[in-house]
Amino acid sequence: MAPHQTDAMNGETTTTTTATTLQSVDLIIFAAYVVPVIPRNAILSDHAIVVDKSRIVALLPRVEAITRFVGVDERHLSAHIVTPGLVNLHTHSAMTLLRGLADDKALCDWLVQDIWPTEAAFVCPEFVKAGMTHAVAEMLRCGTTCCNDMYFFPNEVCRVLEETGFRGAVGQIIMEFPGPYGSGPDEYLRKAEPNLEKYAPGCHDLITVTMAPHAPYTVSDTSLQRADALAKKYKARVHMHLHETASECSDSENLNRASMSCHQSDQNLRPLANLKRMDLLSERLICTHMTQLTETEMDAVAAAGAHVVHCPSSNLKLASGIAPVTEMIKRGVNVGIGTDGAASNNSLDMLSEMKLTAILAKAQTLQCSSLPAVEVLQMATLNGARALGLDQDIGSIEVGKRADVIAIKCDSVEMIPMYNAISHIVYVAGREHVSDVWINGKHLLDDHKLTTIDEAQVKQSVREWAAKISKHHKLAQ
Amino acid sequence: MAPHQTDAMNGETTTTTTATTLQSVDLIIFAAYVVPVIPRNAILSDHAIVVDKSRIVALLPRVEAITRFVGVDERHLSAHIVTPGLVNLHTHSAMTLLRGLADDKALCDWLVQDIWPTEAAFVCPEFVKAGMTHAVAEMLRCGTTCCNDMYFFPNEVCRVLEETGFRGAVGQIIMEFPGPYGSGPDEYLRKAEPNLEKYAPGCHDLITVTMAPHAPYTVSDTSLQRADALAKKYKARVHMHLHETASECSDSENLNRASMSCHQSDQNLRPLANLKRMDLLSERLICTHMTQLTETEMDAVAAAGAHVVHCPSSNLKLASGIAPVTEMIKRGVNVGIGTDGAASNNSLDMLSEMKLTAILAKAQTLQCSSLPAVEVLQMATLNGARALGLDQDIGSIEVGKRADVIAIKCDSVEMIPMYNAISHIVYVAGREHVSDVWINGKHLLDDHKLTTIDEAQVKQSVREWAAKISKHHKLAQ
Repeated sequence: MAPHQTDAMNGETTTTTTATTLQSVDLIIFAAYVVPVIPRNAILSDHAIVVDKSRIVALLPRVEAITRFVGVDERHLSAHIVTPGLVNLHTHSAMTLLRGLADDKALCDWLVQDIWPTEAAFVCPEFVKAGMTHAVAEMLRCGTTCCNDMYFFPNEVCRVLEETGFRGAVGQIIMEFPGPYGSGPDEYLRKAEPNLEKYAPGCHDLITVTMAPHAPYTVSDTSLQRADALAKKYKARVHMHLHETASECSDSENLNRASMSCHQSDQNLRPLANLKRMDLLSERLICTHMTQLTETEMDAVAAAGAHVVHCPSSNLKLASGIAPVTEMIKRGVNVGIGTDGAASNNSLDMLSEMKLTAILAKAQTLQCSSLPAVEVLQMATLNGARALGLDQDIGSIEVGKRADVIAIKCDSVEMIPMYNAISHIVYVAGREHVSDVWINGKHLLDDHKLTTIDEAQVKQSVREWAAKISKHHKLAQ
Repeated sequence: MAPHQTDAMNGETTTTTTATTLQSVDLIIFAAYVVPVIPRNAILSDHAIVVDKSRIVALLPRVEAITRFVGVDERHLSAHIVTPGLVNLHTHSAMTLLRGLADDKALCDWLVQDIWPTEAAFVCPEFVKAGMTHAVAEMLRCGTTCCNDMYFFPNEVCRVLEETGFRGAVGQIIMEFPGPYGSGPDEYLRKAEPNLEKYAPGCHDLITVTMAPHAPYTVSDTSLQRADALAKKYKARVHMHLHETASECSDSENLNRASMSCHQSDQNLRPLANLKRMDLLSERLICTHMTQLTETEMDAVAAAGAHVVHCPSSNLKLASGIAPVTEMIKRGVNVGIGTDGAASNNSLDMLSEMKLTAILAKAQTLQCSSLPAVEVLQMATLNGARALGLDQDIGSIEVGKRADVIAIKCDSVEMIPMYNAISHIVYVAGREHVSDVWINGKHLLDDHKLTTIDEAQVKQSVREWAAKISKHHKLAQ
């Protein structure tokens, strides 16, 4: 018999001194509220999440949990909501080092005048290591437990994920032209294959990979097809920018080759139609941005089972437009949420993206009921997991899934009163309220403190990179 | 001679032991960066703001400051940006107690089913005192130093401003129908006049008042004219909701009396035209929301010198629309920023509104250069002050102005690197980075701690109100 348990047989309360019948587990998280995402709308008061090894073995009321389990580690989060870790479905993580380098500029100018020259001058394995570590620190502190990353030197990204214990889908970048990571598509593709094999689904506790052809305007049809063939072979996703701007669509349809937005194809087609023509529009495809979509295109994306990443801050800031999220979801498209890189956001704060997603949809549709909080929370968790093919493992708090969970503390001045925990996550909580993060049951943020990252070292490294970048950028202006 | 000063005459560095020639002042704030708002675009490195009594007496480089002044209190903010306190130009402060009571609902349903019945059951002086104190705590922690408030029981609001040392323009609410604060316009107007007299411009260090006829659809033409006449007599502003929704405009123009959005006039006019007809469109008028505006209307607002409050979160969340801010500013309208009440936001976080203002304008105009960070910072500070007729006293860090300043700490993981301090305030900083707030030179937030508000007491009070409200609201559903 467990301590605290009432003995129903004799009607007496018996407290035993031994706990031999209790199942010992690695971790029990007791929380004032658990919002598990599945079932939808569930808000479980005073519950416990029981974790053994890296997985959730039980989710049950506190009073039951203490009669069945004892944890090597037990955490009592009496002022907190515990919810699945957030999945940031589109990042260029290492670009934290370029946060705020140039703002209030058009996408083309910003890329050509500021971002690309700076990257050409600085991007190297050390830059990626520093930026990725910085980004993981930021994402953990903001309640994110998984990112879908696209950047150069993906081996460095993998190394940082291993070192920090963070989960990621690591894009194997493909571009048509030479860059710091390769001389062209042949080299990019050659470098991708070992990672596709090493990190194929189920091979690693934290890491999966995607093929990441950058965008229609930077990757040829041939390279796109080769990338997709590799993805198909290794059961990986294809992660790319798509229909980000109106000019990308119109310049491609009109084959306006004078424009850098025109796709690298000889077809007079909008990029999505061109991908469909080449049979790339499939459940493997993760389409990022998608601010420009006809109803027919939305239906095509839904029918193919492809996935969409909504990046509202970046799309607004770069004047790209507003993705028709409500309409896409209505038509059956799986839509997740991403921050984009910190150079165009300028943060990796998924809580802020969630609020923006929810309120922007209402103005877009002129309906206050569009994208209610519960839908947006699902977008930022389970839909992201589904896009990555990881929804059997993450995205909700369910028995059998990985213990990727976060705690949001709800007792600060800004967080009270709280009438509905789901609404509060989306409309009230800020990154600063994220107190604890577990990935694979490992405590990576413990009462606001990073456990696997030396914060002082990260800051010193960022300062050093920023000093060099700032000097170079000023000279170039 | 001052300590630390180099004696140019003999080339030696002399450190004297007395400081008799130094001017003694109440406070010196040494900051890594000062962004004074005026001059526009200025970012002053390693500067000092010198404060005596409640006013700024000098703004100068640190190395000069230490040769001229000694502060009774000296603060060294070596990782901070110091900037003018934010002016939240539209609040219903006490509604923090209803934060998140009902979300994802249409404006009319939300008002009629949730907000108004709850207010009818609970609003009383004690409610306003508790909610206002709570709101001031939140606003201080978010870097706001002045609010333009509209709510019931304004005398309680004034009392809380006095007690906490917070600055406010306190709306004297006017509505056509009875409410918890009065039986109708006669009583509302009667209650307003003593406050208009007591808090006339220049009469109080912290408090001014506005006439606050709620909206065209809740106040008759007669009452609007009486309110404006009182405002004119006492040199006060008139603060009202205006052109918040498309239906408010079309229902008024069509005199669709079946709709609660229709104005309380017999004129087939859009509300702004009706105000113009009655000569209410003047430099006294602060028009809140204004999501629906023709070009002619914008020009009329500009020509009259009336002021506009942009409330982007609330306008998106309630599906009201997006105010044409860029176009208004181009046409010479003075536009500030407000959060609206926490029931429709669900926060009083001006930093978040600033970022949203900046990025929303870019998508609205399809120009990345629209509303650059420097413009948005001015909106949230000086433009707000100007709207309230307080720009001689607050809204920028200039000699002679009140010392209403805030410090934003810039060394956290999320805040580095920093290439431009103004861009960082708008695009990166969160409320949690606001470390210090002074109003009238008084230190109200000292390294994140409230000095004039008992935080534990606020929380206890909010919990008690929320328990009663929650019970009542659930029964009513």
